[in-house]
Amino acid sequence: MALPREYLGQSCSIARALEVVGERWSLLIVRDAFFGLRRFSDFSAHLQIPRAVLTERLEFLVGEGVLGRTPGPGRRFEYELTDKGLELWPVVRTLSQWGDAHYAPDGRRRVFVHAGCGGEPDPLGGCPVCGETVVPAAMVMVPGPGMATGPDADPISVALSLPRPLLEPVT
Amino acid sequence: MALPREYLGQSCSIARALEVVGERWSLLIVRDAFFGLRRFSDFSAHLQIPRAVLTERLEFLVGEGVLGRTPGPGRRFEYELTDKGLELWPVVRTLSQWGDAHYAPDGRRRVFVHAGCGGEPDPLGGCPVCGETVVPAAMVMVPGPGMATGPDADPISVALSLPRPLLEPVT
Repeated sequence: MALPREYLGQSCSIARALEVVGERWSLLIVRDAFFGLRRFSDFSAHLQIPRAVLTERLEFLVGEGVLGRTPGPGRRFEYELTDKGLELWPVVRTLSQWGDAHYAPDGRRRVFVHAGCGGEPDPLGGCPVCGETVVPAAMVMVPGPGMATGPDADPISVALSLPRPLLEPVT
Repeated sequence: MALPREYLGQSCSIARALEVVGERWSLLIVRDAFFGLRRFSDFSAHLQIPRAVLTERLEFLVGEGVLGRTPGPGRRFEYELTDKGLELWPVVRTLSQWGDAHYAPDGRRRVFVHAGCGGEPDPLGGCPVCGETVVPAAMVMVPGPGMATGPDADPISVALSLPRPLLEPVT
C-alpha cells in the first residue's frame, strides 16, 4: 500500500514516520494492540470510532507491516503487532509520559512495570532497578492513581483497568 | 484554548498527548522549532502548508503552552519552545528513530550529536560516550548519509542541511 504522502516535500524520518502512524487514531490502535487487543470488534468497542475508519486504519497498518493479520478462532481475523510494530513502543511511551506530565491532574492511569523485578522501565525499556532492557512482552501494566472506571465502562476498558501483562490477548 | 477532544472517551495520557500534538503538521512544527525556526514566514517556507493551517496550529500550540510567542525584530512575532515544548524532544526522536529504521533507504538524513563529546545521545538524551543526559540545547545536528538537498531547495532547507546547533535561530 502506498504511503499517503501527506507531508510532500518533507522527507525527514519524522515526517515519514508520521505518514504511517500520524493519521488520526493510528497510534491509539497501536497502543491498544500493545494492551492486548486483537479483534476488530474489540478495537471497535474500545475506541468507538466508525467501523469504516477502523477498517481503513487496520488495512493501512497491515499494509505497512506494523500489524500482522492472521486467521483467528471462528471466521475472525486477528491483528497483532509485528516486530516493526513492537518497535513503536518507545513512541507510545514517550507520548504517554508527556501526557502524564501535563494532562493527568489525577495522576497516571497506567503504570508499566517490569514483570521480572518490579522496576519501572523508561520509555526505551531501560529498567532502573535491574538494569535490563525490558521488552513490552516482559511488562505488566497496573492501574495508577488516575485510573477510574465508571460503571458503564465497556468490558474491554474494565479488563484494561486491571493489572495485566502487555500483549496478552484481552479476549 | 480548549482541547479539541477528538478522542472523546479516551482518557489515557497517550490520547491526551495526541489531542495536543497529534493534529496534522503539529509535530513537524515542533520539530522545526527544535531545528531553530522561529518565524511564521520560516515555518511557512519550510513546511509549505496553507497559511491558515499554520496560523491555527501555531495558535493552538501557544494556547497549550508548547510554544511561547514573543515580539521579535520588526513587527514580527517569534515562536519558541517552552519547557513543556522542549519535553517533546523524546517524542520527536523516537519517531525519527523509527522512521530512520524503516523509511530511510539511503540512510539517516540527520544525526544528533552531543556537542560536548561527539557522542550520539539516545532519544531520552542519554549519551553513550560521556554518560551525561544531554538536553537538546547541547546537541548539534549534522547531515547523515541520506541528506540530499536539491538546487531548488528553499533557504531554510539549505540552512538545515548544514551542521548546526539545535534551537539556534535559523534567521
